[in-house]
Amino acid sequence: MTGTLFGLGVGPGDPELITLKAHRILQAAPVLAYPAPETGDSLARRIVAPHLNGNRIEVAIRMPLSAPQFPDESVYGKAAKSLGTHLSAGKDVAVLCEGDPFFYGSFMYLFARVAEQHTVEVVPGVSSPMACAAALGAPLAAQNDILTVLPAPLETELLKERLATCDAAAIIKLGRHFSRIRSMLSDMKLMEHSRYIERATMENERILQLDAVNPDASPYFSMILVHRRGKAWQR
Amino acid sequence: MTGTLFGLGVGPGDPELITLKAHRILQAAPVLAYPAPETGDSLARRIVAPHLNGNRIEVAIRMPLSAPQFPDESVYGKAAKSLGTHLSAGKDVAVLCEGDPFFYGSFMYLFARVAEQHTVEVVPGVSSPMACAAALGAPLAAQNDILTVLPAPLETELLKERLATCDAAAIIKLGRHFSRIRSMLSDMKLMEHSRYIERATMENERILQLDAVNPDASPYFSMILVHRRGKAWQR
Repeated sequence: MTGTLFGLGVGPGDPELITLKAHRILQAAPVLAYPAPETGDSLARRIVAPHLNGNRIEVAIRMPLSAPQFPDESVYGKAAKSLGTHLSAGKDVAVLCEGDPFFYGSFMYLFARVAEQHTVEVVPGVSSPMACAAALGAPLAAQNDILTVLPAPLETELLKERLATCDAAAIIKLGRHFSRIRSMLSDMKLMEHSRYIERATMENERILQLDAVNPDASPYFSMILVHRRGKAWQR
Repeated sequence: MTGTLFGLGVGPGDPELITLKAHRILQAAPVLAYPAPETGDSLARRIVAPHLNGNRIEVAIRMPLSAPQFPDESVYGKAAKSLGTHLSAGKDVAVLCEGDPFFYGSFMYLFARVAEQHTVEVVPGVSSPMACAAALGAPLAAQNDILTVLPAPLETELLKERLATCDAAAIIKLGRHFSRIRSMLSDMKLMEHSRYIERATMENERILQLDAVNPDASPYFSMILVHRRGKAWQR
């Protein structure tokens, strides 16, 4: 009997936004793994900390700041091997994933490596666009709206084209791209159709007017929701 | 003291995919409301049935089959008024929403009406694209992919254009549009990049080859995930 690797969506930040299923698996798993920076705390582990009880084996998958790009073989290859040892010994492994494991998550790189030899089960989680919409009191998409998720690191011209052909958009991964994205929205006369939020559902959640955001301090976990045609749910 | 209206995302179907927060509010709320067909069971209520204990007031928001289109004032105006009476009497009301309340959900029509006079809080839930991706073992989007959600009722030419300019897509609300959508994917040579699933995470979940789907029997709760450029997470 080999163990199962679980990819657990732990939700966007509020520890109470984990599912009953992920909570159950989390409490039962003898081995816990999670992404972490080169030094310091793992956000995913911090989200579930209130739910952890008893001793278990913990494996931090540390991503060097200098990592050239995802997927980094030296990190995920090594992690897959390390977790594979526990799985082969019959132990279940729970991998914590911020938000949902398969929505722009790094879990997919482990998944691709481990699934060839072991059973892998993905437990979906509450994802950041839904959490941001709830916090903003602004529906993501209605009726037959076309909703597009746009990663901010993409080139401005490409983002403009895609933004012009959807009804609603979630611009993710803002961080150091915030200033360029804000200028783009201003050029497109979409400032009044756009709402900014950072760290949705976390204790330090902030909702700001786009003009009020300090572009040097916008975190990776921030998002702009755009409703190009106004409020669909009031049309 | 007036009560709070909670929009509770109850997740995609598996009762265990409700969040701890929605579960807590559900068990405490003296009034429960949910969308339902003109006659028969409510899917949202069926999802949470294992979690209900004790007596409470239940309000079924019944949508006539003949309803011209959403939002139907005669249905949501009436429901808002009825729930408003409970809120004004100081009772919290929990409105059950399949998946997430603000991802193509009908809750937004209640929200728009009730939020003017009462406190409304939205609890985000696990949404169907994430549930489908987990069940298929296929990530929704990776790295800087552009992900687009396309409602199947839209015109074929529009869908083709939007599909041609994203990396990954979730085609939702298939139902009676399945046959047309499958032909479109075939025309675009995307059949091998597309995966079909119906009723993800429910007991009668089915994953089928597109060719094997009976177009007369594809339910509303089905989805096709498309990865135009192949498997991003293995690139």
